[in-house]
Amino acid sequence: MTRVAILGGTGYTALELLKILARHSSAKVTAITSRTETSPIREIHPSLAGRFDLSLENLSPQQLKERADVVFCCLPHVASMEAVPGLLEVGLKVIDLSADYRLKDPEVYAKWYGHAHTDVGRLSSAVYGLPELYRDRIRGTNLIANPGCYTSTSILALAPLIQRGLVEPTGIIIDAKSGVSGAGRTPKQNILFAECNESFGAYSVGNHRHQPEIEQILSESSGHKVDVIFTPHLTPMDRGIEATIYAVPKAKATQQELLEVCRAFYQESPFVRVVDRIPTTKDSAYTNFFDMTIRIVKDRVVILACLDNLIKGASGVAIQNFNLMYGYPETDGLL
Amino acid sequence: MTRVAILGGTGYTALELLKILARHSSAKVTAITSRTETSPIREIHPSLAGRFDLSLENLSPQQLKERADVVFCCLPHVASMEAVPGLLEVGLKVIDLSADYRLKDPEVYAKWYGHAHTDVGRLSSAVYGLPELYRDRIRGTNLIANPGCYTSTSILALAPLIQRGLVEPTGIIIDAKSGVSGAGRTPKQNILFAECNESFGAYSVGNHRHQPEIEQILSESSGHKVDVIFTPHLTPMDRGIEATIYAVPKAKATQQELLEVCRAFYQESPFVRVVDRIPTTKDSAYTNFFDMTIRIVKDRVVILACLDNLIKGASGVAIQNFNLMYGYPETDGLL
Amino acid sequence: MTRVAILGGTGYTALELLKILARHSSAKVTAITSRTETSPIREIHPSLAGRFDLSLENLSPQQLKERADVVFCCLPHVASMEAVPGLLEVGLKVIDLSADYRLKDPEVYAKWYGHAHTDVGRLSSAVYGLPELYRDRIRGTNLIANPGCYTSTSILALAPLIQRGLVEPTGIIIDAKSGVSGAGRTPKQNILFAECNESFGAYSVGNHRHQPEIEQILSESSGHKVDVIFTPHLTPMDRGIEATIYAVPKAKATQQELLEVCRAFYQESPFVRVVDRIPTTKDSAYTNFFDMTIRIVKDRVVILACLDNLIKGASGVAIQNFNLMYGYPETDGLL
Amino acid sequence: MTRVAILGGTGYTALELLKILARHSSAKVTAITSRTETSPIREIHPSLAGRFDLSLENLSPQQLKERADVVFCCLPHVASMEAVPGLLEVGLKVIDLSADYRLKDPEVYAKWYGHAHTDVGRLSSAVYGLPELYRDRIRGTNLIANPGCYTSTSILALAPLIQRGLVEPTGIIIDAKSGVSGAGRTPKQNILFAECNESFGAYSVGNHRHQPEIEQILSESSGHKVDVIFTPHLTPMDRGIEATIYAVPKAKATQQELLEVCRAFYQESPFVRVVDRIPTTKDSAYTNFFDMTIRIVKDRVVILACLDNLIKGASGVAIQNFNLMYGYPETDGLL
Repeated sequence: MTRVAILGGTGYTALELLKILARHSSAKVTAITSRTETSPIREIHPSLAGRFDLSLENLSPQQLKERADVVFCCLPHVASMEAVPGLLEVGLKVIDLSADYRLKDPEVYAKWYGHAHTDVGRLSSAVYGLPELYRDRIRGTNLIANPGCYTSTSILALAPLIQRGLVEPTGIIIDAKSGVSGAGRTPKQNILFAECNESFGAYSVGNHRHQPEIEQILSESSGHKVDVIFTPHLTPMDRGIEATIYAVPKAKATQQELLEVCRAFYQESPFVRVVDRIPTTKDSAYTNFFDMTIRIVKDRVVILACLDNLIKGASGVAIQNFNLMYGYPETDGLL
Repeated sequence: MTRVAILGGTGYTALELLKILARHSSAKVTAITSRTETSPIREIHPSLAGRFDLSLENLSPQQLKERADVVFCCLPHVASMEAVPGLLEVGLKVIDLSADYRLKDPEVYAKWYGHAHTDVGRLSSAVYGLPELYRDRIRGTNLIANPGCYTSTSILALAPLIQRGLVEPTGIIIDAKSGVSGAGRTPKQNILFAECNESFGAYSVGNHRHQPEIEQILSESSGHKVDVIFTPHLTPMDRGIEATIYAVPKAKATQQELLEVCRAFYQESPFVRVVDRIPTTKDSAYTNFFDMTIRIVKDRVVILACLDNLIKGASGVAIQNFNLMYGYPETDGLL
Repeated sequence: MTRVAILGGTGYTALELLKILARHSSAKVTAITSRTETSPIREIHPSLAGRFDLSLENLSPQQLKERADVVFCCLPHVASMEAVPGLLEVGLKVIDLSADYRLKDPEVYAKWYGHAHTDVGRLSSAVYGLPELYRDRIRGTNLIANPGCYTSTSILALAPLIQRGLVEPTGIIIDAKSGVSGAGRTPKQNILFAECNESFGAYSVGNHRHQPEIEQILSESSGHKVDVIFTPHLTPMDRGIEATIYAVPKAKATQQELLEVCRAFYQESPFVRVVDRIPTTKDSAYTNFFDMTIRIVKDRVVILACLDNLIKGASGVAIQNFNLMYGYPETDGLL
Repeated sequence: MTRVAILGGTGYTALELLKILARHSSAKVTAITSRTETSPIREIHPSLAGRFDLSLENLSPQQLKERADVVFCCLPHVASMEAVPGLLEVGLKVIDLSADYRLKDPEVYAKWYGHAHTDVGRLSSAVYGLPELYRDRIRGTNLIANPGCYTSTSILALAPLIQRGLVEPTGIIIDAKSGVSGAGRTPKQNILFAECNESFGAYSVGNHRHQPEIEQILSESSGHKVDVIFTPHLTPMDRGIEATIYAVPKAKATQQELLEVCRAFYQESPFVRVVDRIPTTKDSAYTNFFDMTIRIVKDRVVILACLDNLIKGASGVAIQNFNLMYGYPETDGLL
């Protein structure tokens, strides 16, 4: 049994982590922290009533160390890199769900997040927590940079064809759509029900922070300099990301051949489903599955990919990483 | 042509007023105010682009008087009763969409709104702006207290049968459901999309502020002391209120007879539709119609009623009142 | 390991059963039937890809008996009572999710379902599958009549206070609201997205088939003749039922006392959460929990109750019944 | 006053036409037809109660001619081209909302609609009813081919930059998203609420019928052979289309210059709003406005465009065409 603490328990990623951990055969949640709240967790997340009796606490790294083996850090960026070093120093393992350890280059971080990185030394050793690409590295690390939701969708969709040299690594267009839970739980006018419901639109066109993350990981993992245009859209639903991706073919291949390449690429990955039909977000909602298919349209390869932004795009993959780090079955808690 | 100003232009009731006024044959919007914003109205409400070129301004009553004949006051309660006296004093007519002039008894106001009333003298002269009950009074007034959305639904549904002595005035249960726009546009966690969507639940059970308003108007208009249990619920949709109302019959009457009583009661009211089928909120969404029907179930009369909370429940009825005050056709701008 | 077959695999209750069974420690799905389809189950329910490799088959009772120990019958009413006798006769246990074995009186069945009952002999021996009331009977039976979704909500909310004599058994008003999945997966105009979305309204007022079921079980379990007015409403969401219930108090008791009575009543029931706050459907969505609270408003006891119509209201409770029948932990597969 | 008949009154486009016509200063609806229904229109579309007293009738062209000057044909494709010739022959004007007269080449029609065209002679004379491109032709015709919803969105977004030579006419990617009302009112499983809600996904990738229509009109109006990849997606909302369009720039121009080109192009078009902010579908929902903006991202021009699929994408533009045909103000009924 591994003892688990959640750092920052009031948001949606903490909620989803806790729901999954309630089902896990070998994890026990021993602490949930907040700097401001002391309520029982069931008052913050009523759906957890009857599943967890814990209350939120403000705990030091040392106190956490006494209670837990590993910390899932659900703080926002900046706050995360202020907290993580102390956790690692007392000997805790950390799975960080923020963006703070994802980008390897501190200047890229500073440019996109508007804040100098304060823990530059750990950027190179933190492991990017995408198990389908980095299963081995994840097994051996103490610090996971859990991927962004749009990022996972885009990378998992593109990695096989880029790595196998079947599409050009540049000129890629990623038209992505997300449910509103991706925007978090802090009240803002643009995510009010009466603003988002019955509304669909793009945002952060050409300047969303997941773009450099997509490019970094796809470049690093393929050995090619990957360049994408990334356009996110807000969709009136709770859960789910869909990405429709347009890439230029580099070699002649049929749709079936491309699908087979992807199936082979992911044959050891229990949460990737390369399907024939066009996936919808509902197929993978409330699961840790990533679904994708491929069509060839005129002179383009069109990849259609879906996942649940809070599970496979955040808390589910975090548990998948946890399972790998501790040698548990990769699917524990996630089926 | 009547010159119209909107006091407090950033919320949903102001937006709906402006959409209706854009269609009105005899109204011209000359000013929209805000104490804090100076943006063009199209930046606050993008749907108004191409319809209004005005920008928000902070205007004194005297400045408003130079530009307008009548002011629609869209401020929150308390702020409204601070602003209205000054508007009336310079000779403007006022249609107040807040709750501040609805309750006749200042102690009831203080109890339910948690604030002493600061303009008690006008409570008796303000006219409750429900045209179906008070058409004549509305024609002659300078100050309209525009009704609450749940209130209009409940009163219009019950007034005919109570006034005609066909149901008991006490022991009435009003189980009401509202779309989320009724909660306004100020960011709060409970009205975030990811909280409300795919969620339904009651709130303010036994202590919603529209209960005393319903009881006051139904009592005053029927001459009986009316007593209701009122339970509001938040429904995952933008628009609409549905009320399912359970009353005890006082006299023997068939469903058809009760429907005919209602039809006769509302025969001069162009926006009331007494229908045979069970109405849904979609039937009246984006219109100024109020729909109702009646069923007899065991020992109860069940009334089912719907309207659009922002139109017939707020801004539409405000224009209906405006039309009556200025002698325009009651339906101008509203079909 | 218990071998499980699903009879009628194309609808939503079968889908939810399969999702739960995928997590169950001691159940193995060995067959899924359809009279018309032979597709892989992942084509009927894309979300099951990667979880089940079975295809739909048209199997006789004898064939089912070779493969399974127990059958979850997901056929519509009438079809169910045509199939169930054959299953029992070959020695299978049956958990029937239709309405066919819920009502004890065949005349009541014929009146509400418009069809003579064709297996009257089993009506008395079938056990109503509401574990919170009938845990012991469930343990020993071969035929479960799994409850209706509105019915479970209403009964669980009312049973403690009626059985303890704290509210009158008559004059009860149940104002219930359901997500659209409760209407099934057969295409009909009234459940199209563009009809239901942004719409709320009542239906089957005074004549919904769950009313006699609620009355039968509450009467039988309390020893009082229970009489309810039941009004269902369709709500624009996938999942969830909320019931706001108005009852007349029979004895003096505070809100806290009533809550304590309910907590005591359900202390052995792991899926009932008697909470202080007003529950919403989102709190229990995608879980097997039933949530309730109580308020006293004027001269009424108001009970507010929620559950997920497809889980605790259908497939989840079916698994709970299965667990009891086979001696597995009541929560297996359901947390 | 122009007398108007609706051919095929049961669907959503007929409903929206009737709502607009109720507000029109110079149109009177005199007949609504159906081959199967004879109900009052308020039973088919409850929202029309109190607005229209007509019942559905099965009328011959000659009978229609006695009652009406112009017919809005709301039949499905194929049915439309069977009905339109008879209407024109008795001297009625026709605005056809189906696809039957949009494509000029009968072989293209046959390929995409799977049916030989049966009124080939009129394909060349029918006028494509997109007022922003063909205002003059529309004024003089008796037969309007009203455009498709995705088509209008795409053409209005691209026409200025293609015609002015600012983007390449080939290699254009149109990633489009539509609300569910675009799929019509005939019950099918894929448009059930419980299937579409909380779901987003692509469909008809590379083979949607609006693709050849977009290419034909953009090519014809610009004099360049235009070639697009068009990907439609179904979005969980009633109304609205958003298109995110990726084009390769042909000349150097800033975002502001491109926006100014579009503003100049549409300066006589009262329903086009070229805005600075990124539009959402809610901005134009329930209106006849088309909203667009432009961003330059890396080596692409990204156009973001929205309209209401049932209004500007169908029934609203049909009324705009009607206004032009009869010399009424272009905005009559539409503000």
